[in-house]
Amino acid sequence: MPSRDTDKVLAYLQSHHSQYRRELVEFLQIPSISALSDHKADVHRTAQWLAARLRQAGIPRVQIDETPGHPIVYGEVITDPGNPTILVYGHYDVQPVDPLEQWTNPPFSPAIIDNILYARGSSDDKGQVYMQIIAAEAWLKTHTLPVNLKFLFEGEEEIGSIHLAEYIQMHQQELHADVAVISDTPMFAPGVPAVCYGLRGLATLEIHIDGPHQDLHSGVFGGAVANPAHVMAQLIADMHDDQGRVLIPGFYDHVDALSDEERKNFSSLPFDQEAFQQGTGVPQLYGEIGYSTLERVWSRPTLEVNGMWSGFIGEGRKTSVPHSAHAKISCRLVPHQDPDRVLDHVIRFIHDHCPPYVNVQIERGEGDPGTLTPITHFATQAAVQAIREIYKKDAAFIRMGGSIPVVVTFAQVLKIPTVLLGFALPDENFHAPNEHFHLDNFDKGAETIAMLWPLLKQTYLVQGGHHDNP
Amino acid sequence: MPSRDTDKVLAYLQSHHSQYRRELVEFLQIPSISALSDHKADVHRTAQWLAARLRQAGIPRVQIDETPGHPIVYGEVITDPGNPTILVYGHYDVQPVDPLEQWTNPPFSPAIIDNILYARGSSDDKGQVYMQIIAAEAWLKTHTLPVNLKFLFEGEEEIGSIHLAEYIQMHQQELHADVAVISDTPMFAPGVPAVCYGLRGLATLEIHIDGPHQDLHSGVFGGAVANPAHVMAQLIADMHDDQGRVLIPGFYDHVDALSDEERKNFSSLPFDQEAFQQGTGVPQLYGEIGYSTLERVWSRPTLEVNGMWSGFIGEGRKTSVPHSAHAKISCRLVPHQDPDRVLDHVIRFIHDHCPPYVNVQIERGEGDPGTLTPITHFATQAAVQAIREIYKKDAAFIRMGGSIPVVVTFAQVLKIPTVLLGFALPDENFHAPNEHFHLDNFDKGAETIAMLWPLLKQTYLVQGGHHDNP
Repeated sequence: MPSRDTDKVLAYLQSHHSQYRRELVEFLQIPSISALSDHKADVHRTAQWLAARLRQAGIPRVQIDETPGHPIVYGEVITDPGNPTILVYGHYDVQPVDPLEQWTNPPFSPAIIDNILYARGSSDDKGQVYMQIIAAEAWLKTHTLPVNLKFLFEGEEEIGSIHLAEYIQMHQQELHADVAVISDTPMFAPGVPAVCYGLRGLATLEIHIDGPHQDLHSGVFGGAVANPAHVMAQLIADMHDDQGRVLIPGFYDHVDALSDEERKNFSSLPFDQEAFQQGTGVPQLYGEIGYSTLERVWSRPTLEVNGMWSGFIGEGRKTSVPHSAHAKISCRLVPHQDPDRVLDHVIRFIHDHCPPYVNVQIERGEGDPGTLTPITHFATQAAVQAIREIYKKDAAFIRMGGSIPVVVTFAQVLKIPTVLLGFALPDENFHAPNEHFHLDNFDKGAETIAMLWPLLKQTYLVQGGHHDNP
Repeated sequence: MPSRDTDKVLAYLQSHHSQYRRELVEFLQIPSISALSDHKADVHRTAQWLAARLRQAGIPRVQIDETPGHPIVYGEVITDPGNPTILVYGHYDVQPVDPLEQWTNPPFSPAIIDNILYARGSSDDKGQVYMQIIAAEAWLKTHTLPVNLKFLFEGEEEIGSIHLAEYIQMHQQELHADVAVISDTPMFAPGVPAVCYGLRGLATLEIHIDGPHQDLHSGVFGGAVANPAHVMAQLIADMHDDQGRVLIPGFYDHVDALSDEERKNFSSLPFDQEAFQQGTGVPQLYGEIGYSTLERVWSRPTLEVNGMWSGFIGEGRKTSVPHSAHAKISCRLVPHQDPDRVLDHVIRFIHDHCPPYVNVQIERGEGDPGTLTPITHFATQAAVQAIREIYKKDAAFIRMGGSIPVVVTFAQVLKIPTVLLGFALPDENFHAPNEHFHLDNFDKGAETIAMLWPLLKQTYLVQGGHHDNP
């Protein structure tokens, strides 16, 4: 629905092109490395820059909220209580830059080459945060913004969002919204803009198997006592079939079958299976029978050993029976699996399968559920339409195999779904040397977001206003 | 067959009781710690003491043979080419003494309390070496020694006998003998003198399983690539049944069934199964069905994981698919199993069982066969009779689950069997603080050895002289 309003908004963005390039470079020049205490002042300076920029955009309420760590920048513009309210999340902190010698251009001296901007934070996530600001600005300077916006920009994402969940908990009322929008993810591939509507969850535990009091001489005792390494191996082997399907009773409870539509969506994506395999270096791909690679990583739960150790692991040999064996395990969960129940099932399985010749101890870890925002959700639909307007093509509906903790916090504390609408590309070196951002996606991304707000208001109203929360 | 000759020999030993106590203390006062370079001169001084003592005993040929490490002391007395020749092996070096503060009495200031001698090296092995010398001396000072003796005392046993095999290789002619006798092992239990006639061998290898080029994000890739830790676990699990029987085809080739006589011997031993279990700390013993604990550790081959590692093993969690998994494996072998063939079988099994989703590399290790000196061997029979004469009871026929590399070298290079005739007790703290030696076993041990030589000549002649070599 291009209209005269949105034409003016898009024209505003285009006419400020040079200014936006300059400002983005300025934003990226501040080394907001949250992990390094030497950069604490830089992180704070970045928060101040951001707050000032939000005010300059016309956001009436802007504040820097201190935390025991780095500050959170909050901005709010309420245009009409009847409008949908969107919580926009992003982060202004960046990863450390080492190994520095692998950067072609210094990480905090942004350089534009062939319309690609090279700088730490360019794609993850300062570039995308800045897109959100200018998209709002373009509305605020030309028309009335068709939605209410709440901006939540944190400075600790790269160090595990240490103080974010507590902040959200404490500001539930203030952060109340209909939906969250996050631009901190990649598109599916170059030229394939995507809306991500599902994430996997996580549940972790550690297994400790204890046999003898201490390592035993394998000559004197070997054959007469159970070897904890063997017990652990058997236990782990028992957890899967030959194709990686988990054999733990109850593990797949509440795992939704993929709809025909989803499978069709997944299979229509330009996924290069061979490149995926070669990128990992494995001699052959592998996984649950009956599922494609994308289905396996996006829509199926897994149980993985992340670490395993027992006995003597130094150089040379030590012919002993180890006194213990250990494994760190994590499960990737799909929406509707309850992490607590999954852990219960896994723990029961371990106890049921552990023989009486050893003692087993289980360290129960944390769990986060998977999240899913229905494709039919008004915000998802609006995002798809916005992408179609700007990119002139259908958005890919994708899911992701990883977890984004803030999405879980939004779902659990604020009771709102999240739409992930990111404009980075998968190979733009997030967390690595020579991080970069394709500026055509920066431009189109800002336009898509500007286009999103009126469309979102429309779909919101069509669907009858406030509803559809998870 | 006590005779007037042996009566005089035993009387000689008894009449020199005080001198022998004094000299043994002197021998133990020299801190011959082979592992510590600070003690290199002490080790050398001990070799000189030993050589002098051999000469004093009346051994005509005594020499200190230097090696790139610590010297070997060699002594030889040839009484008659028609007599059996016995190679007596022992070691004069000792283990380090730390933690020193746990010693009640300083390790190199020997103390006798309740007829127990406390000192480093008292039972392992200086005390037993000295027994061999005085048993020979008692003959040489009273009669003609009824056998030819070759003494081979090394100074590097506690650091892996680094130069011994090469020395034996280079001195094959010189060391030629009918049988070897070693006093460096314990009796079965207090009051249960034993002849050990079998040792297990060893074969080792390492398995390396490689999957992706590097650890992969378990969200992005989990479910679509095989996890090397899972593959390793399955591989190790496949190697055994539930009771620890090895499932690798060919593994049990040439493993002799225990004879009824051996089983009877084993079961007649005063073995305290509960103490064995409690000593290890395992909640329950375990092993191949159809075998007792002693049968399992003495007469059955095993395959043990000595070490296993994969992925992230530090504190906390790292939700990744490990790029590799590793295991160190050793097999304890019984006599007649060929270590090379066993390794071939294990390696073939690994290749057959490793799925195409990963790469496997095997590092083939070393192998030593198990050794067995038949109970009917003239030296074994002589040892049993000698024990009966002195201890007034039947010797226990025992085997041991560990390996003694020099026994393998004797078998492979010199082609001679070994009789293990030790007089220490299993709990005399070898390698630990407060090592000690019960002097009644020292006295009876020296007498048993003195009694052994004429008996051995007799059984040798009865069995028709030189034969029976492995």
